[in-house]
Amino acid sequence: MAVIKKIQDKLSALDYSGMYGDDFFLTWEKTYDEIMATFTVADALRALREAGASPRIFDSGLGISLFRDNSTRTRFSFASACNLLGLAVQDLDEGKSQIAHGETVRETANMVSFMADAIGIRDDMYIGKGNAYMREVSNALKEGYADGNLEQRPTLVNLQCDIDHPTQIMADMNHIIDTFGGVENLKNKKVAMTWAYSPSYGKPLSVPQGIIGLMTRFGMEVVLAHPDGYEVMPEVEEVAKKNAAESGGSYSKTNSMSDAFEGADIVYPKSWAPFKAMEKRTKLYGDGDMDGIDALEKDLLAQNAEHKQWECTEALMKKTNGGEALYMHCLPADISGVSCSEGEVEASVFDRYRVPLYKQASHKPYIIAAMIFLSKIKDPCGKIDELIARGIPRYFG
Amino acid sequence: MAVIKKIQDKLSALDYSGMYGDDFFLTWEKTYDEIMATFTVADALRALREAGASPRIFDSGLGISLFRDNSTRTRFSFASACNLLGLAVQDLDEGKSQIAHGETVRETANMVSFMADAIGIRDDMYIGKGNAYMREVSNALKEGYADGNLEQRPTLVNLQCDIDHPTQIMADMNHIIDTFGGVENLKNKKVAMTWAYSPSYGKPLSVPQGIIGLMTRFGMEVVLAHPDGYEVMPEVEEVAKKNAAESGGSYSKTNSMSDAFEGADIVYPKSWAPFKAMEKRTKLYGDGDMDGIDALEKDLLAQNAEHKQWECTEALMKKTNGGEALYMHCLPADISGVSCSEGEVEASVFDRYRVPLYKQASHKPYIIAAMIFLSKIKDPCGKIDELIARGIPRYFG
Amino acid sequence: MAVIKKIQDKLSALDYSGMYGDDFFLTWEKTYDEIMATFTVADALRALREAGASPRIFDSGLGISLFRDNSTRTRFSFASACNLLGLAVQDLDEGKSQIAHGETVRETANMVSFMADAIGIRDDMYIGKGNAYMREVSNALKEGYADGNLEQRPTLVNLQCDIDHPTQIMADMNHIIDTFGGVENLKNKKVAMTWAYSPSYGKPLSVPQGIIGLMTRFGMEVVLAHPDGYEVMPEVEEVAKKNAAESGGSYSKTNSMSDAFEGADIVYPKSWAPFKAMEKRTKLYGDGDMDGIDALEKDLLAQNAEHKQWECTEALMKKTNGGEALYMHCLPADISGVSCSEGEVEASVFDRYRVPLYKQASHKPYIIAAMIFLSKIKDPCGKIDELIARGIPRYFG
Repeated sequence: MAVIKKIQDKLSALDYSGMYGDDFFLTWEKTYDEIMATFTVADALRALREAGASPRIFDSGLGISLFRDNSTRTRFSFASACNLLGLAVQDLDEGKSQIAHGETVRETANMVSFMADAIGIRDDMYIGKGNAYMREVSNALKEGYADGNLEQRPTLVNLQCDIDHPTQIMADMNHIIDTFGGVENLKNKKVAMTWAYSPSYGKPLSVPQGIIGLMTRFGMEVVLAHPDGYEVMPEVEEVAKKNAAESGGSYSKTNSMSDAFEGADIVYPKSWAPFKAMEKRTKLYGDGDMDGIDALEKDLLAQNAEHKQWECTEALMKKTNGGEALYMHCLPADISGVSCSEGEVEASVFDRYRVPLYKQASHKPYIIAAMIFLSKIKDPCGKIDELIARGIPRYFG
Repeated sequence: MAVIKKIQDKLSALDYSGMYGDDFFLTWEKTYDEIMATFTVADALRALREAGASPRIFDSGLGISLFRDNSTRTRFSFASACNLLGLAVQDLDEGKSQIAHGETVRETANMVSFMADAIGIRDDMYIGKGNAYMREVSNALKEGYADGNLEQRPTLVNLQCDIDHPTQIMADMNHIIDTFGGVENLKNKKVAMTWAYSPSYGKPLSVPQGIIGLMTRFGMEVVLAHPDGYEVMPEVEEVAKKNAAESGGSYSKTNSMSDAFEGADIVYPKSWAPFKAMEKRTKLYGDGDMDGIDALEKDLLAQNAEHKQWECTEALMKKTNGGEALYMHCLPADISGVSCSEGEVEASVFDRYRVPLYKQASHKPYIIAAMIFLSKIKDPCGKIDELIARGIPRYFG
Repeated sequence: MAVIKKIQDKLSALDYSGMYGDDFFLTWEKTYDEIMATFTVADALRALREAGASPRIFDSGLGISLFRDNSTRTRFSFASACNLLGLAVQDLDEGKSQIAHGETVRETANMVSFMADAIGIRDDMYIGKGNAYMREVSNALKEGYADGNLEQRPTLVNLQCDIDHPTQIMADMNHIIDTFGGVENLKNKKVAMTWAYSPSYGKPLSVPQGIIGLMTRFGMEVVLAHPDGYEVMPEVEEVAKKNAAESGGSYSKTNSMSDAFEGADIVYPKSWAPFKAMEKRTKLYGDGDMDGIDALEKDLLAQNAEHKQWECTEALMKKTNGGEALYMHCLPADISGVSCSEGEVEASVFDRYRVPLYKQASHKPYIIAAMIFLSKIKDPCGKIDELIARGIPRYFG
């Protein structure tokens, strides 16, 4: 348990008191210490599990999942996190198309939460809607708790919205910290978050936005690269600039994938839809204009097809620092010749990075569990001691 | 734990031995003591949870849910109750339209129940079918247990049928007891169960029927109000009359919402479909006559629309006792100007009662848990002592 | 606990070391001792549960279920087994028609398994595909574990494939052992696995194949009976012949249901589709030839209809040993005059055997639990002692 002692020492040096009883919406709403505490608790929970100790803190309780979109990876990550802590997952299926408002949101949020300790929401389809919906749910739960209708306030975890994808990006970041041997080694490392071609349409902006919103906080040189017309939300770019200034790093933009890869230590080539097109789509959906949506889809696919050269090739990888940049992706990737004829990444590049890619993904259940743990446990260091001391094995094998 | 001691004292005075090993179909099949024991155990389970003690009595076991209709509230209540007691919920999806019979019911009931401790069924769509189906399942399980094929007999909980909605109505009643400071204060209180206009069609009769079937047992003056043509099942009215006679209360009917509200202590304005129309619909479904169903739907909506004045307004609320009757609803309500243009209740009335409405709903998970607990535990008073003594926290926080 | 001591003695005499850390694909890949160990551990888990002791070995962990086909019985058996051992079930819904390959299978298998201890797959629709898919998943998980991406390797349990249905057949076999008072009494018993008429089409071959592949290992006389054209996979017949030669039993074929029933101790009359037709269907699906599939279906129904006399009647039952053969079925059966007009079995025969049929089915959850237990627990005998000694009740009643 030496590794856990070391993690506890790290945790003791941080001020994360603000996370107790709080939700997790956007990484840039959390202090640097709170972000670091999340990584540290995630590591502690993993170390506990690997050492055979159960980090279960709930004897009963529900973890509610609400996915407006199909999801396998995030769904299983949330289910794993809940299960590890002792919560039973109960899916709330409100349907995909219908976005509830006002009274309905308030009422449903309370009605399902009488015994809920956590609620994870994925709502990334419509610009201006997903994050707002989550806050509406959170406010309803706060009110329900204040009114005495709920015995406990469920912790809300943003499992992807229109603005950020904090559980993904925090997992990505913890993978980077692991790979580079500590956050202290990240100063001036170059991160290339670049658009890449995909034959599909309308991928959410939450990953590139989340990356520039978080990675700029560690003194790294963050470059966002995309063809003209694939801009992300301007307010997130403002966050990235502010972060970079504060952390002593930089945030810059380019329209050249090659420039972005030049000397990069980390590359994250991934398709996304233009922000303005997503705004337009949101409006079309609001108006129920299905013909307009079909036309927009055709336009966007045609626009994508003009940028097929935005592919993460072996040649591009050679341009990175020592030709050995860390290749990252949130998965699934569009692999040329494998999952599509032309896509985001050359098959040989993807193949070479499969093990680290899976490792990257393995952080997500622990990040989610850490978010819930920090919201529920006032003294995480002491609780970790207790979890070790009580001696309940995760697996009585 | 003084509050729990008091609850145990109450429980000790009651004879509820008949609930051990039994199912819960209709409130009027239970003795007064059994009804009171259910409220009391529900309060005890809540008090235990609020005091931080886990009332989990199962280390493993399944709680099977079978919903023939979409349901969020009841589904989560059942899931919460099962989870609190230690059962994992497993959904049995038999499809909505197909009503299984005979061999199929017997076989399926046994096949899914080898490790099931509880089964909750909601089947409220067809008059004459839902409750009968539940009894068929229950009989199959009794037989399977007697034959030695099942190691334990799952407790069947009626989560809403064509006749009664006992988990809802018991939650409603416990809310009334709480609100009025004890069952001893209910004598001669006036309850107005009244029809209200809704732009939707075919709402089940189980709530008004359940209300007149249960609330007449406490010496209250129960009034059922509805427009001509919205009669409920005559056999349930007979139950209400008998109950009222025995409890020293009264059961009466009126066709005036205003008369019902006059001096009322409790009002429950809610839409439902006419019993005879539901009988007709059941027959049309049985014959597969979809045109007939469409025609019936149109007729019913037109019939509803003649009674838009049946709305719970501020003006009507003023007529109640001190203008301060307890407004109740099983939720979701059709709120005028909020969830529909014209509906069951004025927005300002609903708003004013939101907190008590949510409180009302919060009883349901505990009522369901109490029904299962009383069926599984021979000595609930002693078991509550044990649950406190073993000192397992619900949440190791 | 004398019964458990006896079971442990049996277990101690067997060599089942190969099951630790291994999957369960086909019964004939397991040694005789491994098969017997599975029955023995299943009996031990049942005895523990019946004695009130919880055999839960996981404090947390997921059991993933992947069903490409609708399933109620096997789904609940898997859920029961997982729950008994302490795993939460999480369904992976990949859709029915789409058979994933290569990269997608490898990636998905890893992405869902970060905290998974078991994965149960049912994939029986296409000849040559189901078992192959399971092995692909298993290999991906082995690789993910070797690479350090998975902290534990999930045990794969074949919940029915195109070749075998080991959880069903092992449950069937354990029922036979129980019924005949021990495996030592099975020598020279005659088992008739016979085709029977059903008005439905395309039932999987995994049951008859599984039966001849397993039952030939116990010195029994196994007869496979079917009309011309309903052949099973030749490679499984080879397995049956080899098994029979080794066990001192026999494997033979006949085209007469009556011959098969003559003097039989056990009869298993059940419909299945011709192997060659299933191969053709697999090809048609691969080509997306829906017209071809419709035509094939019509042909197969017509072919079935020529063999309506293949029904398990009272007259046929009289031909069995003492007229009292054990009638078996994996359920649901097509019962003449009950679930269809003409089917696999006469209603009076089915009725007479209902209790043993349900008993037969009751073995499945324990067989699945035993498969997982033996893969996870190095010293099952010692662990059973520990499970008794720790004194955690399954139900704190």
